[in-house]
Amino acid sequence: METVNQLLDSIKDVGRDGVRGGYSRAVYSTPELDLREWFKEQAAHRGLGVETDRNGIIWAWWGEPQDGALVTGSHLDSVPGGGAFDGPLGVASALAAVDNLKSRGLQPGRSLAVTVFPEEEGSRFGVACLGSRLLTGAIDADKALNLRDADGETFADVARSNGLDPQHVGADPGALARIGDFVELHVEQGKGLGQDGPAIAVGSSILGHGRWKISVSGQGNHAGTTLMADRADPMVAAARIVLAVRDTAAKEPDARATVGRLTPVPGGTNVIASRVDLWLDARHPDDAVTARLIEAIYGAAQEVAAGEGCTATLTEESYSGTVHFDSGLSRRIAGLLPEAPVLATGAGHDAGVLAGYVPSAMLFVRNPSGISHSPEEYVADEDASSGAVALADVLEGLL
Amino acid sequence: METVNQLLDSIKDVGRDGVRGGYSRAVYSTPELDLREWFKEQAAHRGLGVETDRNGIIWAWWGEPQDGALVTGSHLDSVPGGGAFDGPLGVASALAAVDNLKSRGLQPGRSLAVTVFPEEEGSRFGVACLGSRLLTGAIDADKALNLRDADGETFADVARSNGLDPQHVGADPGALARIGDFVELHVEQGKGLGQDGPAIAVGSSILGHGRWKISVSGQGNHAGTTLMADRADPMVAAARIVLAVRDTAAKEPDARATVGRLTPVPGGTNVIASRVDLWLDARHPDDAVTARLIEAIYGAAQEVAAGEGCTATLTEESYSGTVHFDSGLSRRIAGLLPEAPVLATGAGHDAGVLAGYVPSAMLFVRNPSGISHSPEEYVADEDASSGAVALADVLEGLL
Repeated sequence: METVNQLLDSIKDVGRDGVRGGYSRAVYSTPELDLREWFKEQAAHRGLGVETDRNGIIWAWWGEPQDGALVTGSHLDSVPGGGAFDGPLGVASALAAVDNLKSRGLQPGRSLAVTVFPEEEGSRFGVACLGSRLLTGAIDADKALNLRDADGETFADVARSNGLDPQHVGADPGALARIGDFVELHVEQGKGLGQDGPAIAVGSSILGHGRWKISVSGQGNHAGTTLMADRADPMVAAARIVLAVRDTAAKEPDARATVGRLTPVPGGTNVIASRVDLWLDARHPDDAVTARLIEAIYGAAQEVAAGEGCTATLTEESYSGTVHFDSGLSRRIAGLLPEAPVLATGAGHDAGVLAGYVPSAMLFVRNPSGISHSPEEYVADEDASSGAVALADVLEGLL
Repeated sequence: METVNQLLDSIKDVGRDGVRGGYSRAVYSTPELDLREWFKEQAAHRGLGVETDRNGIIWAWWGEPQDGALVTGSHLDSVPGGGAFDGPLGVASALAAVDNLKSRGLQPGRSLAVTVFPEEEGSRFGVACLGSRLLTGAIDADKALNLRDADGETFADVARSNGLDPQHVGADPGALARIGDFVELHVEQGKGLGQDGPAIAVGSSILGHGRWKISVSGQGNHAGTTLMADRADPMVAAARIVLAVRDTAAKEPDARATVGRLTPVPGGTNVIASRVDLWLDARHPDDAVTARLIEAIYGAAQEVAAGEGCTATLTEESYSGTVHFDSGLSRRIAGLLPEAPVLATGAGHDAGVLAGYVPSAMLFVRNPSGISHSPEEYVADEDASSGAVALADVLEGLL
């Protein structure tokens, strides 16, 4: 059977982004569908029983599907121009860990499932961890079905064309009951693991995080004929808002706030925009501080917009409070990996959504530069191998 | 035969943009191709001889093609989410003027051609007035053929799939020699014509204008795990550059500078961008002032980028110096339209490119709000009718 590095190597050409660099594997795009097929083949090849549930989550079973099983897995979708490891490392490590446990001759005390969650990044429909949110009911099915991608397609239509029945999308208590414990292995996304120490950490918590859309409306007009003094240019207001976001977050210890997506409408070079949409990603360990941060940013946005003769609105697209992983499960895992430090993370994960419903935990694999969501994201082969072994050790201890 | 308002009404559903509002009729898109077909049918219906030249310019001849003919026309492509009049008003008025002249029983002393120029807006390939620039040789054919649209398609490929031979695209002295005088009627794009006075003006000059691309590079990273202090975020630098553009232009009397198009790469909500591309449109009647303005903006961009740990580059995509229309031709037209005021315009036009090679002139039709490049662009029916009659008067006087 393939090692985790061989598994990752076998998908290294799927979904490369020639323009942005790295990988663009949006949920239900051709590359992500190719990866889903690859996973199903790999699972079948290992004798695992594969099923796709009503929310598009793939389950590969070692043993019969049963309530209270041990579940591990991650996602295969990526941000636009993302790295090779964010998602696939956890899925490939789970497959490698199954091989490892079989080679140890392990007779599991309960069934084990390897799962693939769709739309973890929220890159296509705007809501991160959409699969686990639907499974748990953390998002209302109607709200999810009406989400639209950048081409205007609804999630309902895309789900339907990918074999799901929109009427059955949503909270799935039967499937959720199958998760006795959930463990997700993931590439670390900061510099929490030093170059010389252990390569694996145990997760303690996930920073509260959310997404907000800010729309700034002004007066669309001709760039050549409209005098500077006669303008109500939403791009100028949006620029001031981007700076207000940074300055507000910089003043708040432990806060992170980012504008990484911004779209002027109509977006012509010789056109003063009539509207600029921008998306705010904000995170802080204390939910009350995040709320205060958003309030401050919205206040600044409205003031700045008014100063340019524009208006600004702010809409929450998603929010997840700070999650502390299950203390009992984390303690057991720490006992199984005594060398591993305990790390909090600023990144959201399906394990963070599931933690509100079932005992959940995470393992992180060293990322020397801390760079992620970028083609430069990197995990050394030996660290990936150590991660797969550590995951096998944890699963063996929990099975 | 149809009036100018009936002609415009017959294309009012072509290329409507459901997302941006108004019309999106990019060159060689389905809507623009539909409009080209519509024009050819209208011309044929009037007994005009239609030919498409090596650069995709359509010529509809009243009389035999000949050197030194009188030529009038405009364009059918639009900016994204543009108005109904910018371009089509000139084409429809030219057709209506032919009808009018025929109904007057005019026997032309020389041939008249109605022309449609492709890619006047530069919305698809980034270079405004691409058709007239190619015809005159104002742009090098190789440079034009290598231009790419947002999907990465080259102009060469798009030209080929629209029936042009890329080897023959470029300067066309034979076609240029056919233009004895060129008159373009266009919707006014400022508030130069008051509500109560005449509806038609004669153009005097076009402000020098150009497009520059500014690329800001930083460090792409994860929006949740990267501390504010550890960032080199090109979006923050780009925001400061947008403000520098506005502030620099606001200090320079008569200058206009705009950022209407801005693209973060990769553009994910939970991703600190690795690069932001933004396009600068700048205009001033004095070419030396424009050069100084661009220099100041580039200096500010580099300084601002360095302050954020980023770098900035600036590339000129196109530049056209201030154009004064042919004084002899303008004087003759002023004599034919004694009521019409004389107006300068901040907008670029094919007539402005042609003016460097053949006697050229423009007529402007009132736009009460001055709004253009926007769904709100508006011309009253009676003003459109007056424009078509004025154009007929001018053509009769020049034929």
